[in-house]
Amino acid sequence: MSKLLIVGTVAFDAIETPFGKTDKILGGAGTYIGLSASNFNVDAAIVSVVGDDFPQEYLDLLSTRKIDISAIEIVKGGKTFFWSGRYHNDLNSRDTLDTQLNVLADFQPKVPENFKNTDVVMLGNLHPLVQSSVLDQLTSKPKLVVLDTMNFWMDCALPELLDVIKRVDVITINDEEARQLSGEYSLVKAAAKIHTMGPQYVVIKKGEHGALLFQGEDIFFAPALPLEEVFDPTGAGDTFAGGFAGYIAQSDNITFENMKNAIIHGSNLASFCVEKFGTERMLQLDSEEIAKRFEKFKKLTSY
Amino acid sequence: MSKLLIVGTVAFDAIETPFGKTDKILGGAGTYIGLSASNFNVDAAIVSVVGDDFPQEYLDLLSTRKIDISAIEIVKGGKTFFWSGRYHNDLNSRDTLDTQLNVLADFQPKVPENFKNTDVVMLGNLHPLVQSSVLDQLTSKPKLVVLDTMNFWMDCALPELLDVIKRVDVITINDEEARQLSGEYSLVKAAAKIHTMGPQYVVIKKGEHGALLFQGEDIFFAPALPLEEVFDPTGAGDTFAGGFAGYIAQSDNITFENMKNAIIHGSNLASFCVEKFGTERMLQLDSEEIAKRFEKFKKLTSY
Repeated sequence: MSKLLIVGTVAFDAIETPFGKTDKILGGAGTYIGLSASNFNVDAAIVSVVGDDFPQEYLDLLSTRKIDISAIEIVKGGKTFFWSGRYHNDLNSRDTLDTQLNVLADFQPKVPENFKNTDVVMLGNLHPLVQSSVLDQLTSKPKLVVLDTMNFWMDCALPELLDVIKRVDVITINDEEARQLSGEYSLVKAAAKIHTMGPQYVVIKKGEHGALLFQGEDIFFAPALPLEEVFDPTGAGDTFAGGFAGYIAQSDNITFENMKNAIIHGSNLASFCVEKFGTERMLQLDSEEIAKRFEKFKKLTSY
Repeated sequence: MSKLLIVGTVAFDAIETPFGKTDKILGGAGTYIGLSASNFNVDAAIVSVVGDDFPQEYLDLLSTRKIDISAIEIVKGGKTFFWSGRYHNDLNSRDTLDTQLNVLADFQPKVPENFKNTDVVMLGNLHPLVQSSVLDQLTSKPKLVVLDTMNFWMDCALPELLDVIKRVDVITINDEEARQLSGEYSLVKAAAKIHTMGPQYVVIKKGEHGALLFQGEDIFFAPALPLEEVFDPTGAGDTFAGGFAGYIAQSDNITFENMKNAIIHGSNLASFCVEKFGTERMLQLDSEEIAKRFEKFKKLTSY
């Protein structure tokens, strides 16, 4: 079984959407990536940090899904990273209401010994120095390194971000971030420029408009499933990344052709994520409904 | 050969984009629909009106493409409809700088005798009463009636618009217009509501994000070709509609399956339209490059 090393926040979120409001609930990029990847037959571990205010039941939710949580450090007397946000009516944009870094401020990721030879690495959205530090600890070159990031790091830590981008095979960012990173409006030109920064594969996430995969001249356009109701977009991008990395690790086949499948698997899982608040829908998911919706994706673009 | 009746403006446009500016050039929905449909093997006619300021060479451009222009009325002493607009930097939105209805204000469309039994009707964006009047003049029920419209008529002539929508098989509108017409944000719900207004098929155009086709529970997601350069989006929606209607008329096959092909043909032609100012690219197009790019579309979503 392939090993998948996931690095990302395990955290508390408080979310407001036009449809309701949550108290502090389970959140974080590492959580969503892990839950999504756990739908594949892989040996996954999450590297992260929480405070001792973090409920054991949340950690149990991960470990019952066979995710190795031994590298989620629990800081005594520390408080867990907390993010709170409010989505606008169209759910396409949001305001951050509160960010409390807490234990994340001094996070020094420690890759477990048995994952230093991991097959696939999924670097969730975190400070680029944290992402680099994970790569530094590996003892053998992974088959694939996937990096997710966001505009915040382009604004605040661009040199460090460019350093880690050089070292990855796949970058997943949204359309606005691809434009910011490349200085190009056309996504075709943006992807070409990002290729020159290092990643052989560029995945541009467009939310309800699907995703694009670029490798040199080759382009794949993956649809998003048109949904009747989107309840809460939180974690959709991470769920997409987790499905992508999980499928690639399971199939152990690193080609443009297979990445197409990986993107559809990621999109498929993300389409469930947005149907309920937080991780709720991901925690209920069974393999039968995943397979059924995957067929729906096939029908959506076949002609 | 199937007959395709096109109703739409034949007009002057003056366009500003971040890449340049034109004087009065050939434009109008009827023009773009006609040029696009002329790439298929159909017997097409345009019903429209111009003033006697309209250059004969523009009319010749249409008739050399075997488009029947006998129902383009030339009003003596009249001035041709003129639209002028400026696109914003992202090319996704524009400001109208000037609209001079001129001869369009009193336009009474006259369907030529030999097109009163047309197979397919493409009602380009015009006052809904003009669109209705065209349907009133037909002596036999067409196999397919396609209607394009815009938010302007939803604001100013909604009852008349709803009347004509009842009578058509396919409506093509953009995502914002689908939301406005239905009062639903979700495009799935919007399409369901628009179905109840009459059209069996709902096509939602999303510009650079592709298009969606709905028939009841069935959904098809057509990609747009990611382009290096978009020069001028004017006419892209009409070119899409013209390719859709032209392909349907040529193939004489009205099924959901075949409409998928029609949408790809429409998207394919629209991808050329935006590469140059106005109709310039559509006037240079040859069948070989159309076929070549159609294959590119196939590759874009196949996995």
